[in-house]
Amino acid sequence: MGREKLLDSVNYPSDLKGFTGEELAKLCEEIRELLIETISQNGGHLASNLGVVELTVALHRVFETPKDQIVWDVGHQSYTHKILTGRKDRFSTIRQQDGLSGYPKQAESEHDAFVAGHSSTSISVAAGLARAKTLKKEDGHVIAVIGDGALTGGMAYEGLNNAGRFGDRLIVILNDNEMSISRNVGGLARYLSKIRSNPEYFKLKDNMERFLLRIPLVGRGLYRFLYRTKAIVKEIVYHNTTFFEEMGFVYLGPVDGHDLRSLCRILRRAKRMQRPVLIHVETKKGKGYQFAERKPTEFHGVPKFDVDTGNPDAAACDSFSSVFGDTMEELAHADERICAVTAAMGQGTGLKNFARDFKKRYFDVGIAEAHAVTFCAALASRGLLPVFAVYSSFLQRGYDQIIHDCAIEREHVVFAIDRAGVVGEDGETHQGIFDVSFLSSIPGVVAYAPFHYMELRNDLKRCLYQEDGPCAVRYPRGSQGKAPKGYEFQVGLDYHLFSQGRADILLVTYGRLFQEAANAAISLREQGIGVHVLKLNRILPFPQEALEAALRYPRVFFAEEAFERGGVSQTLGELLLLHQYSGTYRVRAVTQFVPQATVKASIERLGMDAQSLGLWILGEVGR
Amino acid sequence: MGREKLLDSVNYPSDLKGFTGEELAKLCEEIRELLIETISQNGGHLASNLGVVELTVALHRVFETPKDQIVWDVGHQSYTHKILTGRKDRFSTIRQQDGLSGYPKQAESEHDAFVAGHSSTSISVAAGLARAKTLKKEDGHVIAVIGDGALTGGMAYEGLNNAGRFGDRLIVILNDNEMSISRNVGGLARYLSKIRSNPEYFKLKDNMERFLLRIPLVGRGLYRFLYRTKAIVKEIVYHNTTFFEEMGFVYLGPVDGHDLRSLCRILRRAKRMQRPVLIHVETKKGKGYQFAERKPTEFHGVPKFDVDTGNPDAAACDSFSSVFGDTMEELAHADERICAVTAAMGQGTGLKNFARDFKKRYFDVGIAEAHAVTFCAALASRGLLPVFAVYSSFLQRGYDQIIHDCAIEREHVVFAIDRAGVVGEDGETHQGIFDVSFLSSIPGVVAYAPFHYMELRNDLKRCLYQEDGPCAVRYPRGSQGKAPKGYEFQVGLDYHLFSQGRADILLVTYGRLFQEAANAAISLREQGIGVHVLKLNRILPFPQEALEAALRYPRVFFAEEAFERGGVSQTLGELLLLHQYSGTYRVRAVTQFVPQATVKASIERLGMDAQSLGLWILGEVGR
Repeated sequence: MGREKLLDSVNYPSDLKGFTGEELAKLCEEIRELLIETISQNGGHLASNLGVVELTVALHRVFETPKDQIVWDVGHQSYTHKILTGRKDRFSTIRQQDGLSGYPKQAESEHDAFVAGHSSTSISVAAGLARAKTLKKEDGHVIAVIGDGALTGGMAYEGLNNAGRFGDRLIVILNDNEMSISRNVGGLARYLSKIRSNPEYFKLKDNMERFLLRIPLVGRGLYRFLYRTKAIVKEIVYHNTTFFEEMGFVYLGPVDGHDLRSLCRILRRAKRMQRPVLIHVETKKGKGYQFAERKPTEFHGVPKFDVDTGNPDAAACDSFSSVFGDTMEELAHADERICAVTAAMGQGTGLKNFARDFKKRYFDVGIAEAHAVTFCAALASRGLLPVFAVYSSFLQRGYDQIIHDCAIEREHVVFAIDRAGVVGEDGETHQGIFDVSFLSSIPGVVAYAPFHYMELRNDLKRCLYQEDGPCAVRYPRGSQGKAPKGYEFQVGLDYHLFSQGRADILLVTYGRLFQEAANAAISLREQGIGVHVLKLNRILPFPQEALEAALRYPRVFFAEEAFERGGVSQTLGELLLLHQYSGTYRVRAVTQFVPQATVKASIERLGMDAQSLGLWILGEVGR
Repeated sequence: MGREKLLDSVNYPSDLKGFTGEELAKLCEEIRELLIETISQNGGHLASNLGVVELTVALHRVFETPKDQIVWDVGHQSYTHKILTGRKDRFSTIRQQDGLSGYPKQAESEHDAFVAGHSSTSISVAAGLARAKTLKKEDGHVIAVIGDGALTGGMAYEGLNNAGRFGDRLIVILNDNEMSISRNVGGLARYLSKIRSNPEYFKLKDNMERFLLRIPLVGRGLYRFLYRTKAIVKEIVYHNTTFFEEMGFVYLGPVDGHDLRSLCRILRRAKRMQRPVLIHVETKKGKGYQFAERKPTEFHGVPKFDVDTGNPDAAACDSFSSVFGDTMEELAHADERICAVTAAMGQGTGLKNFARDFKKRYFDVGIAEAHAVTFCAALASRGLLPVFAVYSSFLQRGYDQIIHDCAIEREHVVFAIDRAGVVGEDGETHQGIFDVSFLSSIPGVVAYAPFHYMELRNDLKRCLYQEDGPCAVRYPRGSQGKAPKGYEFQVGLDYHLFSQGRADILLVTYGRLFQEAANAAISLREQGIGVHVLKLNRILPFPQEALEAALRYPRVFFAEEAFERGGVSQTLGELLLLHQYSGTYRVRAVTQFVPQATVKASIERLGMDAQSLGLWILGEVGR
């Protein structure tokens, strides 16, 4: 401290070129400090970024973006890349409204080769970019950086199965930290761990000769024998390939992902090759920050925290996720048919205790939503009660499976859809604004949208014990809202009418927005305008009685924290018209991708906070 | 012939138990005759079914359904299974209205363990069924039968990565015929072919001892050496595993899939094992029917054909697919940015000639729709013009990728959506009735629905050269309809009003249904009821002028060959109401999964043929 920082003189990759090895190491330290400091203020992905500091520096030392293109899988490890590509000065704005994105975005910088956010897309992207370079005869390399966690997603495998075929120059860096968001799972994880524990074994082909000659006594003889005969033994040794080689890649590694010298050397070697290469890099998630090294899962995505203690600023409070988890726990004790499935989101969806207490009925399938949905359908077909706990935005990956494996034969699978609605700082890729539309497009799906915890608990039980076929409960990130004064608390209803006094205006909504809608109504009443609020609890299929209630008001407004087309407001609009409604209908729903900001600010931007809703209605009524 | 058939005495698997090996072989021949005879009449999947006759007989000889459960991947190879499980007498009804399904269906028989139709789901299903057996302490085996083509789908890999983990008894049969629908592609295909060509190499671990002792001269010494030392060589030999072993499976095979004795032996061996097993079976697609053996792609799915010549009954005529393919061909000659991508459907989507003429710009990625979409997005980001030709029902697999990789950064990817609307005999799993809803749920997507070929050609060009971002052209299976008398042929319009005389009634529709709608209007006019028909060409976003036109009619009807919620009719309904429309609005759309029947019969069942539409309007007007 006090001394001048190397990082001060670094704004672009070209600034690294003259650095000595020692200087680069020092630079990495400084980058780590900046990461820890900034993320402790803004929240964000800490452990994954700390793990790839050296790798990123080495990549920018050896390659030259944007001519060379780096594709970050998921993208939550791209912070160092952003710091080194002209965005250091704005780095303090990361994940904030109008600030830098926490993910790569072409729109943000020419150094960001492709958008990311969802897992396992990078190899497909890199295959496309590499093919485009070949077709357009453009210079430059394409590098995909993918974690071992992301390799559990089927799409990564589809990418691998195709990327090696064309022989285009393409480097896949497997960032192997033995972690998905939680500890990594599945056959491939075991396989990678085997490679790690037997590096010599896989380096064999490089060193065939030296190796054989080193074997005592028979070594030389064996060597000669192997080369003289065409015995199958030779086949064996030569065929002893990795999975990645079978897919058409040259396999290099494993290499220590925190050793800059080795990293640069292996990257240069890969750069010289004229064909697809996979480099196996071993990194440590959270590297350089003791709390994150010790608890990489807790420090995967973090809110603000205290750098000295590693403790989050605010005490963890209850949330829809924790209430869901507690309810699952309680129900599973009483009913041994209940199973919980997650796609690497056990922690985020509140299933930590369930995982501990019901090992045989808890399934973390890795980042494999398609498999998760169909696996649930099969469990359901045998009379078990599977609940797939999943973030709204990630369930998009299981759309076909809900149709094909759940809905056609009406398998009774429950979807607990967390992070429904706007999610805040993660921005466009993570918003939970499409589940209503895509569930609505599937015959026979039932969906609930609780406003408070009691309702969540009750809706979950209804899904488990009163519905059949595929059904869903969707709830937002964070805690329940505050019910307005005068709201009579009841659960088990399809909808609830919050009606004080007479009113010609009906404001329809569901989920979290009810708080805003009710406050808008209260405030409008104070201004002499009567507004009733119809809070839906069941959103799919639309409750017949709620429709009949709506038909009685000359003016109906709908505020919906979901995409407009295919949303509940569109369904109601059509239903009203089909029932000869001739009043005024107005809708406020999401009309485009929602950029990053706090949840509160996002809802204000969308004009869905109490004040905006009040002004909206006032404006329409005044006409 | 004339002799009594063995098959006459076989109705259930138990009837096989007493058969000698010779009798079983004869039975297989008889089954093949029945398959060829029936499929030549009904159309259906020929080559895949001929390939698994012995495998199916062996499975039913060794296992006992429904206690044991066989999960057929895709399901188009399940005909012999159906014949052997109580459905022989109804086999002539296969793929016909109210007849047997061409795919497995729980609803059809307790011997069908799970629904199928889309590819690559069987391992996930089997994993769920096996886990359920363990949890419920039920007896019996679970067997997944999956082709090497289906293994190109990422979901199969997600299944493999998870299925081996629990150690549940589970048998995966890899039905390796070196084919997807077309010739199989990708790294794994190469890998399988390597295994096939080196069977000894993979049997090594079984035969380690015998093998080493057989090597001349040094064999015995080498053997002793290996067992005496802990040299790495031993490691090598023992670690020399297949990909499947890495995934947690015992690997057995390869075995000749037409040798009943070997099949039964290996199945019995797998049955005795208390852990996950993968059996690699080599089969020949089309086995036993010379035309199908020679041209397995042509005989994958077939219409009626002449058994003696192998020729289809009707001459191949033009279709939306062939016109699409010709247009692509023509455009690609003039513009070298154009690329075509298909997920194993090059033949079906009409890209055969394109594949031949533009090898570098043609990509069959295997059954990997998710990869295909993202690969296209990456090509587009570099200024190429990728067109993903895909069946509507299979594009459901790429839903998240359209949102995440195409729509957020507005990559200009064109989706040529074939088999949109009802598809006929393939039934529920294959209907193209959801694409309108799911595309509609994505911000910024543009979609066209041509009625005739000229429009298809023009819409495709508009997508390529006038739109940006993700855009789609959707068109039905089969040929263009007949335009009504008096219809003025124009292309390049967003909508067209077919208006003869005065009318208070507007019938809105798009795509194939225009023919029915126009004929209904003509017929109603003859009955003195004036109806104009608004034919949409652009369906997304809804054309503003078409909305304004609709607002002028006191009665608006909408007939839509797509699912109701999220459909264009719902969009129009809401728009009308938002524009204070106070007339009558009526909709006829798809409200549930559509069962198998001819396309014509399906449209009649849906009440969307000219006569039904006429009666519908008449009924409403009469009120």
